[in-house]
Amino acid sequence: MKKNYSLLLLLPFLLPMLATAQAVTIDRVNPTNWWVGMKNPNVQLLVHGPGAGTLAYTVNYPGVKLVKSSTVENPNYAFLDLTISPTAKPGRVQLVGKKGSQTVTQSWEIKARDNAPKAQGVTAADFIYVAMLDRFANGDPTNDKFTDMRDPNMDRANPFFRHGGDLAGVAQHLPYLKELGVTAVWLTPVTENDQPLTNEGGTMRASYHGFGFTDQYKIDKRFGGNTAYKSFVQQAHAAGIKVVQDAVYNHVGNTHWILQDLPMKSWLHQWPTYTNTTYRYTPVTDPHAAQSDRKVTLDGWFVPFLPDLNQQNPYVANYLIENALWNVENFGIDAYRIDTYLYNDQPFMNRCNAALLAEYPRLHIYGESAVTNVVDQAYYTRSKIDFPFKSNQPGGLDFVLEGAMLAGLKEVGTPAATGWDGGPQRFYQTLAQDVVYEDPTKLVTFLDNFDHNRFLSEIGDDLDKYKMGLTWLLTTRGIPSLYYGTEILMKNFKDPTDAEVRRDFPGGWPGDKENKFTAAGRTARENEAFDFVKKLATYRRDHKVLHTGKLMQYLPENGLYVYFRYDATGTVLVASNTSDKPATLPTARFSERTTGFSKARNVLTGETLSSISTLQLPAKTAVVLELLK
Amino acid sequence: MKKNYSLLLLLPFLLPMLATAQAVTIDRVNPTNWWVGMKNPNVQLLVHGPGAGTLAYTVNYPGVKLVKSSTVENPNYAFLDLTISPTAKPGRVQLVGKKGSQTVTQSWEIKARDNAPKAQGVTAADFIYVAMLDRFANGDPTNDKFTDMRDPNMDRANPFFRHGGDLAGVAQHLPYLKELGVTAVWLTPVTENDQPLTNEGGTMRASYHGFGFTDQYKIDKRFGGNTAYKSFVQQAHAAGIKVVQDAVYNHVGNTHWILQDLPMKSWLHQWPTYTNTTYRYTPVTDPHAAQSDRKVTLDGWFVPFLPDLNQQNPYVANYLIENALWNVENFGIDAYRIDTYLYNDQPFMNRCNAALLAEYPRLHIYGESAVTNVVDQAYYTRSKIDFPFKSNQPGGLDFVLEGAMLAGLKEVGTPAATGWDGGPQRFYQTLAQDVVYEDPTKLVTFLDNFDHNRFLSEIGDDLDKYKMGLTWLLTTRGIPSLYYGTEILMKNFKDPTDAEVRRDFPGGWPGDKENKFTAAGRTARENEAFDFVKKLATYRRDHKVLHTGKLMQYLPENGLYVYFRYDATGTVLVASNTSDKPATLPTARFSERTTGFSKARNVLTGETLSSISTLQLPAKTAVVLELLK
Repeated sequence: MKKNYSLLLLLPFLLPMLATAQAVTIDRVNPTNWWVGMKNPNVQLLVHGPGAGTLAYTVNYPGVKLVKSSTVENPNYAFLDLTISPTAKPGRVQLVGKKGSQTVTQSWEIKARDNAPKAQGVTAADFIYVAMLDRFANGDPTNDKFTDMRDPNMDRANPFFRHGGDLAGVAQHLPYLKELGVTAVWLTPVTENDQPLTNEGGTMRASYHGFGFTDQYKIDKRFGGNTAYKSFVQQAHAAGIKVVQDAVYNHVGNTHWILQDLPMKSWLHQWPTYTNTTYRYTPVTDPHAAQSDRKVTLDGWFVPFLPDLNQQNPYVANYLIENALWNVENFGIDAYRIDTYLYNDQPFMNRCNAALLAEYPRLHIYGESAVTNVVDQAYYTRSKIDFPFKSNQPGGLDFVLEGAMLAGLKEVGTPAATGWDGGPQRFYQTLAQDVVYEDPTKLVTFLDNFDHNRFLSEIGDDLDKYKMGLTWLLTTRGIPSLYYGTEILMKNFKDPTDAEVRRDFPGGWPGDKENKFTAAGRTARENEAFDFVKKLATYRRDHKVLHTGKLMQYLPENGLYVYFRYDATGTVLVASNTSDKPATLPTARFSERTTGFSKARNVLTGETLSSISTLQLPAKTAVVLELLK
Repeated sequence: MKKNYSLLLLLPFLLPMLATAQAVTIDRVNPTNWWVGMKNPNVQLLVHGPGAGTLAYTVNYPGVKLVKSSTVENPNYAFLDLTISPTAKPGRVQLVGKKGSQTVTQSWEIKARDNAPKAQGVTAADFIYVAMLDRFANGDPTNDKFTDMRDPNMDRANPFFRHGGDLAGVAQHLPYLKELGVTAVWLTPVTENDQPLTNEGGTMRASYHGFGFTDQYKIDKRFGGNTAYKSFVQQAHAAGIKVVQDAVYNHVGNTHWILQDLPMKSWLHQWPTYTNTTYRYTPVTDPHAAQSDRKVTLDGWFVPFLPDLNQQNPYVANYLIENALWNVENFGIDAYRIDTYLYNDQPFMNRCNAALLAEYPRLHIYGESAVTNVVDQAYYTRSKIDFPFKSNQPGGLDFVLEGAMLAGLKEVGTPAATGWDGGPQRFYQTLAQDVVYEDPTKLVTFLDNFDHNRFLSEIGDDLDKYKMGLTWLLTTRGIPSLYYGTEILMKNFKDPTDAEVRRDFPGGWPGDKENKFTAAGRTARENEAFDFVKKLATYRRDHKVLHTGKLMQYLPENGLYVYFRYDATGTVLVASNTSDKPATLPTARFSERTTGFSKARNVLTGETLSSISTLQLPAKTAVVLELLK
C-alpha cells in the first residue's frame, strides 16, 4: 500500500479521569487467552476498562504467577506480567483487582495446546497463491455487510467498496488451487478492519484491503470471523495447502479500539503537525543520512488514517508480539507475510521474529520491503553484509528480482534482449548478486502484486512473455508466489486506480455470468495459460530438484539464457531464447552440468530429445528440459 | 582498455635445448637490483640466459644467503631465493654458477635505501590529475622515436600513433598543475612498451597507451627512461605533488622479452584455441556461476596481443610483486593505480597488496574494476560484505559513482531531475549504499577517463552541468581525480575511436598554435572553466573539512539536493538545484548541521550571506557555502 493523502487525523486524546469515585470495570483483556506449555512461559496482559489501572491485582491459580503489575499514563490500563508454569492446568484464571472496598474479578482462559498442524513454514518446495480476500470469492453472502460496523456497505459495482469475498469463498476453491499446483495460500489481512469509509482525494474508499486493523484479536466478521478462519485453516491443511497470514505491525486503523483511549501518548509516533512518511528507504541504510530524514521515513505515518505505532514502546512491542504468537497458536497458520516491513522499527522486528521462531522454528516470515537494489533488500533479511544493524528475518519479498524479471521480459523480442545489459541479462545479473543474502532461496518471488500493474499488462499482453516469466518464476531459486487471476490472464494497470488490479475473480460470486474456476468457463487462451501454470507448478511440486536443487546460471549470450537446477535426484535445464528469431544452441559450453546426460524430456511438451548436444530454441520461448542419461 | 580483436597470437614456444655442450651465459637478472634493510629480507631472483637453469649456484657475500635454487621447464631459467640480512653492506653480490668445469659469475647489486620521500599515499586530501603520458606534453623531442624499437614511428597527424608526450613534458607543467590545485599526478603506464604496431580491425595502432609491458624494469625510453622517471618523481615531490604509477599485473605485451623464451608453459593462461575474456564481471561474484564462465572472464586474454599472466604460478606472482616493490623503492612513487584489477587472480592481488603495504603502510592502491553496481565494486576493495573471498585492496576507482553522477547530471534541467529516481537522486542513492565499503573515502572518484566519453561531451557541452559535476566531484567523499584537459573543456566521444578522447593537450608540443597552459592561450569560456576548477580545488586543498570531514546528505526534494561536509574545524554546505527554475530553499530541515551557524560565505563567488535561514538557488547550479557563526 502506498498512498498520499492530505487529510489530517485528529486524534482523540487523553482526558484526566474525572470521576475517581466511579465504579471500576474491566471490559477487555488482551491477549484474549493464552496457552499452557508455550516455550516462553511469560505473557503480558493488557487490561482495559474505566479505572482498570487503579486496581491492585492478584492472581490465585496454581501454576500462574503474577510477576508484575504496571500502570501507565492512562489510568484505564493495567499491564500484568504473568508466568504460566508448564504444569498449570488449562482453565479459567481469575484476575482479581482491588481498590479500597471494591473488588473486580475478570475471568481469563489458559488453554491446552492442540496438536493440529501449525507453523509448517513455506519453503522453496511451495507455490504460494496470493488472494485479495475481498475480491476472490464470496462463499457466504450472509456476512457481506453489517449495519453495526462503521462501513455498512457492500457494493460490487463500486470498485472502492467491499465486494463480499470471504474465507468461505477461498475454502470452496481449495480444489481449484490444488488443481493448479498451489501448495500455500497467502490472503490479504483477515484481521478486523472496522474502519469507516475514507475520503481519498474525493473518492470514498472502504478498507476492503484489510491493512487498517481495529482489533488484533478478531478476524473480520465480513470474512467469516474467528470461527471461519480456524475452519478455513483446517480445511486448507486437510487439502495439503498451507496458510500464510498477512501481518501489519507498523500501523493500525485510526478507529482501532485502543486509539479511542490511548494507554499513553507514546503508543503512537506523534508529530507536532501531521507528517507522512516519505516512502524513501535510503535514509535507513545510508551511512551519511540525517537523523531527521530517517525519522520521517520510519516514524512518519503511512497515510493519515493509519496511525504509526511506536514499537520502541515496550508495551506496544509486547502487544504486537503476543498477538503474532496468538495467531499461530490459535489458528494454526504456517507463515507470516509482513506488511510494510521496512517502515517498522527494526530492533522490534528482530524481537518479534525471534519470539515467533523460538516458539515455532519452522515458521517462515517474509516482509514487504519495496526497494530497488539488493543492498537495501539485504538489510531487511539475514544477510552477508555487516550493516550496523543485522536483521534476523528469515525471508522477504524479492522486489528486486520482480523488477529485473519485468524489465527483462519487456525487452524480450526487441534488440535490447541481445544487448550488453538487456533482456535476460537483467534477470541473470540480479541473481548474480545473491551473494548478499544468507539464503536467497528463502525469498518469496513474484511477478506482480496488489500494488503493481498486473503482470500480463506490464508485459504488453504477450503470451510468449507470460510463459517465459512464469517459467522463470517457477524454476529459479526462491519461493514462487502468484497473484490471483494471473493464471486466467487477468490484467490491468494500477493507473488510474489500484482497484483496477484488484478486480473480482470471475465466478467467485453467486450469479457471476462467467466462471473462470472451471475449464468450461475459460476461453481457449485462458485455458492455455491456466494449463501452462498448472503443468509447470505440478512438475515443480513433484520434483525436489526444483525445491532444494542448486542453481547454476550461465552468462546470457545473444539473448540466450541457460540455467540449471541440479541435485542428486536430477538436473533440469532451462533455456530461454529471448530474441525474436529461432536459435540453435550447442551445449558444449554447459558441460559442467550436462556431463553424464545424453537425452532429455521437454517438461512442457512431453517431447523426448534423443540428443542434447544442440538445442533448438524457438523465438521468445523458454524450454524446460529434464535431463536423462 | 577494452577491445575486441580477431587476431590470434602465435606464441613462440619451448624447444628442447639442443646444444648442451654450449657455453652457459647469464643475460638477465630480475629484479635488476635490491636493497638492504627492506622489512621483508627475502627476494627471488629470476636468472635468464642460455642454460642458466643448468648451473649450480652459490653466493658468497656477507649477509646474503642463497636459500634455494629452483629450476623450471625451460633450462634457460633459474630462480634463486635470497635472504638479505639488515646488516649486509650495500655492494655488488656475485652470483656464481657452476656446471662441470664452467663457472659463470654474474654481478648483482644490493643498494642502500635512500631517504627520499616515497609511498606517501594519496588520500581524500588530494586531487589527482590523470594524464595520458603520450598525449599531454612533449618536453623532450629527442626521445620521440627510436629506430631500434619495434615501433619506430611518431606521427601526431595519426591519432593511433605515438605523439611524443613524455615525462619531461609533465615535469615542465608541474607549475600549471600546482596552479590548478592538483596535489597528485597519475600517469598512464610509464613502463616500457616495445611493442610493434598492431593491426586492429584494419587500423595500425601503436602501444602509446602503455598497457603492453615488454620489460618491467625499464621505463620506456620514449618517455625518458628510468633516469627521467626518477627525476620526474623528485621534481614532483619538490613541487608538493605526489606521483601515482599505473601498474599492469594482468597481462603483458606479446613482445615482452620473457615471452620469447617462456620459463614454463604455465607462465601464461594457455587455451586450446584463442579465448578472449568476456569482459563480464558477474561470474566472479555470482554464487550461481559456472566455473567455465568464471575461467573465461579471468583467464581469457584481454586482447590477442596482451597475453594473460598466470598469477597462480608462484614464480609469476613473485616476479610481479617484486617489481611492484622495486618501483616504489627505486623511483619513490606514492601510490598505485592498478589496471584491469578485476581480471587479476584475486588471491594474487591480495598477496601483492599485502607485500606492498607491509613495506609501505601509507601507500595507496586503487584498481580499475569497471562494474556498474556497488556489490561487485565492493568485492574488489575492503568491504563489509562477507564474500567467500575478501579483498584487501585499500581503494578502488569508483565506477559506480561515476555512472551515477553522469546519469544524474544528464537529467539536470529536465523533468527527470525532480522525479522519484532521477537527477540528483542517482548521485544521492549511490552514496547511500556506501555501507558496503569498509571506507568509501578511499575510493578514487572521477567523471571520465581515457576509455570513456569525455565529461563535457557526455553532459551535452553544458557548462552549468560541468560546474555542478565538478562541484560534486570536489566536495563529496572520496579522492577526486580529473582527466587531463577537462579543466580546459576538452571534449569528444570515444566513438568512432578512443583516440578522440585522448587528444593532445594544446600547447604541450613545441610549435603548437594554441597554448592552453596559459590564461592568454585559453578562450574566455575555457578560462571560466579553468578558474572554476582552480577555485574549488584550491579551496578544497586548503580546507581539511573537505578531506576528512564527515558527509551528511539529505533526501533530494524537488530536484534540490543538499549535503554537508563537517568536522570540528567547520561545516560546508553544498546545495544543488538541478531543476531548470530558480528555487528558494528554507534550511530548517537541515538543523542537525546548521545549528550554531547563522551566516555563510559563498566559496565560489566570495559573497557573504547574512542569513542562512533561506537559500536562493539559481537554476542548474550548485552552491558551496562555508557556514559561519
